[in-house]
Amino acid sequence: MTVYLVGAGPGDPDLMTVKSVRLLRSADVVVFDALVETSILDLVPSGVECIDVGKRPGRGVPQENINALLVQLGEQYERVVRLKGGDPYVFGRGGEEACALIDAGIACEVVPAVSSAFSAPAAAGIPVTHRGVAPAVTVVTGHRKDGEAQVDWAALAKAGSTLVVLMGVAERASIAEQLMGGGLGPQTAVAVIERATRADQRVVRMRLDELAEAHVTAPATIVIGAVATIEAAPFYATCKTPDEAVSPRSL
Amino acid sequence: MTVYLVGAGPGDPDLMTVKSVRLLRSADVVVFDALVETSILDLVPSGVECIDVGKRPGRGVPQENINALLVQLGEQYERVVRLKGGDPYVFGRGGEEACALIDAGIACEVVPAVSSAFSAPAAAGIPVTHRGVAPAVTVVTGHRKDGEAQVDWAALAKAGSTLVVLMGVAERASIAEQLMGGGLGPQTAVAVIERATRADQRVVRMRLDELAEAHVTAPATIVIGAVATIEAAPFYATCKTPDEAVSPRSL
Repeated sequence: MTVYLVGAGPGDPDLMTVKSVRLLRSADVVVFDALVETSILDLVPSGVECIDVGKRPGRGVPQENINALLVQLGEQYERVVRLKGGDPYVFGRGGEEACALIDAGIACEVVPAVSSAFSAPAAAGIPVTHRGVAPAVTVVTGHRKDGEAQVDWAALAKAGSTLVVLMGVAERASIAEQLMGGGLGPQTAVAVIERATRADQRVVRMRLDELAEAHVTAPATIVIGAVATIEAAPFYATCKTPDEAVSPRSL
Repeated sequence: MTVYLVGAGPGDPDLMTVKSVRLLRSADVVVFDALVETSILDLVPSGVECIDVGKRPGRGVPQENINALLVQLGEQYERVVRLKGGDPYVFGRGGEEACALIDAGIACEVVPAVSSAFSAPAAAGIPVTHRGVAPAVTVVTGHRKDGEAQVDWAALAKAGSTLVVLMGVAERASIAEQLMGGGLGPQTAVAVIERATRADQRVVRMRLDELAEAHVTAPATIVIGAVATIEAAPFYATCKTPDEAVSPRSL
């Protein structure tokens, strides 16, 4: 009677952890959301129920209902896997689900994962920190709701930290304006990574003052800061290493 | 002739990625640093040379020499694995190594990993972001050298972001003072996670104004912000997951 809050990572099944693969293979029931790839769900043994609670624009299961479902399943099954895109404790609302389970007396464990916040830039060859360039990295969501705690973009503009904005495509004009208002130069480098680590990944590089008008589509990760100009070694999503190694620029 | 910059994750071999395990098992030579656990090196087939270039207090291989070694090995071997603690592109100097390899014409690929910055807090039951509490997270190193780009701690104090300080034990008094000088309240919650995800992990919780005098030892991760009071579901390093059928060795 344990609920495992398991991170699926950024998308490529090869970036799942050993522990997450083991748990998926031995689950009695799986509850997954919209950010989880079907190739990852293929790891679940046939006959095991997989419940889709994905929140998508215009529809979706309210968080309270997901919490209640997890509590109910935790009372019913030996091994419940709550599978979340990315890392459960980084904008995954995993903390809320864990607290709801603990309050209900259900045993609960988190399994950290490769975070999209760092691996999406890596997939484009961008290290989020770099000696002499970026001594810190801030991860922030561009998606805002009423009643949410707010970030101070102007303060972030002064901190000297690389900014990684998740779910920020819709709000990119406002974000760019607030950052420039806070003192970040209009020529600051920006990279937008669409569909990171997927076969159809696309990287667009620009200046901060071009972000508002840029043709980019969600889901995408926005990297703001000098590291966004770096093109170091990327991660190759389509590569089944090492035998099927692809050429460095084939993405 | 490819050098793979592979992240080993925070310590527990179960938190390695599928891809990193596969690469370790098929490496022709492995170059590792001080943050990599011996239980992870055990995955390398016997007979394969493992070169220790770990930087430790008072000794260590200069970064330029590591870069040169990787170039040399990349010219010599089919599959070189450069194994780094945590994620190669998050304070791992992986970006520098990648650039050195690319400049020398050596094929190079990065394999992202579970970052200690997020998994160390998770191991203590702390989500780095939490709805209504922390809308952003900043990861910063407390270790400073001359000539490094500097973070503006006072600006960070105003940003409303959770702070995760890596390698900050020695500088904790100065960090706390700068943050309080920037406006962060002395009662701000702090958690220090020593030896995260290891069997002998220890978590110490306190207020920001107690950090300077706290008895904590490196290696440790310092979490500063309201999330540090949360005790949600932790990650259990001593693997007690369902069955042992899938281990790093059996993948």
